[in-house]
Amino acid sequence: MRSVFRISALCIALLLVATPVLAAKKVRWKLAMTWSSTLTPFATAPLTLAKMVEEMSGGNFVIRVEGSEKHKAALGILDMTKGGQYEMGHSASYYWKGKDIATVFFCTVPFGMNADEQNGWFYHGGGMELMQKTYDKFKVLSFPGGNTGVQMGGWFQKEINSLDDLKGLKMRIPGLAGEVFAKLGVNVTNIPSGELYTSLDRGTIDALEWVGPAMDIKMGFHKIAPYYYTGWHEPATELQFLINKRAYDKLPPEYQAMLTTAMKAVTADLYTDNFAGSVDAWDKMKTEYPNIVVKTFPPEVLQAMKKAADELYSEYAAKDESFKEVFESQKAYMKKARIWTNISEYNYIKTSQELTQ
Amino acid sequence: MRSVFRISALCIALLLVATPVLAAKKVRWKLAMTWSSTLTPFATAPLTLAKMVEEMSGGNFVIRVEGSEKHKAALGILDMTKGGQYEMGHSASYYWKGKDIATVFFCTVPFGMNADEQNGWFYHGGGMELMQKTYDKFKVLSFPGGNTGVQMGGWFQKEINSLDDLKGLKMRIPGLAGEVFAKLGVNVTNIPSGELYTSLDRGTIDALEWVGPAMDIKMGFHKIAPYYYTGWHEPATELQFLINKRAYDKLPPEYQAMLTTAMKAVTADLYTDNFAGSVDAWDKMKTEYPNIVVKTFPPEVLQAMKKAADELYSEYAAKDESFKEVFESQKAYMKKARIWTNISEYNYIKTSQELTQ
Repeated sequence: MRSVFRISALCIALLLVATPVLAAKKVRWKLAMTWSSTLTPFATAPLTLAKMVEEMSGGNFVIRVEGSEKHKAALGILDMTKGGQYEMGHSASYYWKGKDIATVFFCTVPFGMNADEQNGWFYHGGGMELMQKTYDKFKVLSFPGGNTGVQMGGWFQKEINSLDDLKGLKMRIPGLAGEVFAKLGVNVTNIPSGELYTSLDRGTIDALEWVGPAMDIKMGFHKIAPYYYTGWHEPATELQFLINKRAYDKLPPEYQAMLTTAMKAVTADLYTDNFAGSVDAWDKMKTEYPNIVVKTFPPEVLQAMKKAADELYSEYAAKDESFKEVFESQKAYMKKARIWTNISEYNYIKTSQELTQ
Repeated sequence: MRSVFRISALCIALLLVATPVLAAKKVRWKLAMTWSSTLTPFATAPLTLAKMVEEMSGGNFVIRVEGSEKHKAALGILDMTKGGQYEMGHSASYYWKGKDIATVFFCTVPFGMNADEQNGWFYHGGGMELMQKTYDKFKVLSFPGGNTGVQMGGWFQKEINSLDDLKGLKMRIPGLAGEVFAKLGVNVTNIPSGELYTSLDRGTIDALEWVGPAMDIKMGFHKIAPYYYTGWHEPATELQFLINKRAYDKLPPEYQAMLTTAMKAVTADLYTDNFAGSVDAWDKMKTEYPNIVVKTFPPEVLQAMKKAADELYSEYAAKDESFKEVFESQKAYMKKARIWTNISEYNYIKTSQELTQ
């Protein structure tokens, strides 16, 4: 009986002392991204999320991240997450506008909120609730996945001085912004990303929009198009984490907490990574290609774009009840948030500009 | 011997199967805040951090958060974290300017970077490394702890139309901004927060600055002072998490990862909470007190402030090598970052303003 006692004591000692820090349930997930694994800083967010979760769980909760080069279904992320082939996805909500037009508001819309305002709306203006309501029917959870801030209006071969200059212009510009431009007579096309440089260089298209300096610099457009127009169409492009609801519900609460905390952390990182990436990329572009000119569309053109965008929103709202609901929620929040943006961030930069003139 | 075998088997079964999801090392920490436990959204960040860490660790890593109402040492956070009475602190780096003047740059400085630019500098411009170098001598780790964005320039009983209006003005404005104002003839005072309302109401002071609408509304200044000046002096006030280095080094790597991930998450939350709080508070103030006027200091006054600030920076840089090093790092980063801010966020809001005129 002494040996029994000894083994029991050892057993208790093992349980109390020698258990690893996290003797945890093993969970292995897969996450599919719309982007390739090398498309930084977009791909950085899920890759860092996986690293954080793995470290926090002592290697027990592992998320394998797959880029589009592997799964070959860049625009299948929602379906694959819903179906459970992947427990998670990283994409952008406006890719699902064919399934539900209201999804655009959880990414960005022409003349919409900036990133600060959109985050305010998500967390304090009912946005998160409206987003989940929209995604409930797909049986997935949706979370913000990192914001690019104001995207640039694109690279143009010729200056746009009037509405006439838009008529017949061949441009790659997707989404609602493309629909706005189409209303103004632009010949809107979509071209796979791998062919964009050649298309612009050979004159197959006259203009295109991509993201901003951080990501545009790798595409090389600044080497072949002199005009870089400021943004109006994607003022706060929010990427998206999707999670299969059944998979999430099966996670131990500790892992759920790790996942939601890590999503918040990498979402903030992505905004900063993209901002800082644009700071450096713009500095480099402008140094190497000093003839690049930053232009803002003239008032006549901007007013026509705004009018076309407002018409588009009215048309969709008349056809679709959930579009109307989310649109009105954003509109009301943006109205009061913009007053504060104007007083605070905008006014500070304006004051600083005036001081250096 | 059969019973020995049985107990051994039970022992192994227990270890392999019946261990809880996180059979973890128990760690109990204390965190001291500069603020009281009810001062939202500042206090929300460490309180949420503690909640996240507790949830992620299955209740095994517990951080007890104490506000200034308990420890009575609002400005003793660095000393108490260094000394180990508290493993962590939540404060603001500029409170330590008496110990090391370079600490101001890890919070905010007059006419400095905005929040986006400062985050870019922290994570991609060498800021984190310079901050840790500065705090190494205190044997603590320092991390960003949440940013207020552009703070308002304060509440004034009278309009400021010229430099003469500043001469002899009695104002509560702490830190470097106070030193700038002192150079312009302002009679700078410091008054405990509990006495501010009465001091402004009775004319003991003519003006004061606090934070912005989200936090000012609780103080009630808008009821007694009609002019609310826009910001110049704290364009991106970053709060700070401090961690005792020895305590951090003793943590299991899983808990270190939980802590750093949760700090990032709540840091992002604080910015959004304060932005959205200001949106709502400003809306409420302006509705209830429609006579509040938002003013920007006239160009003559702003130019004099800028000149005084530049002089101050030169004076400190001449005296202090580490001040000079951090100042020059920020100045170089800000120069290139501001170009991108102007093209992107600033230009978008400007365009939107012009469209609604």
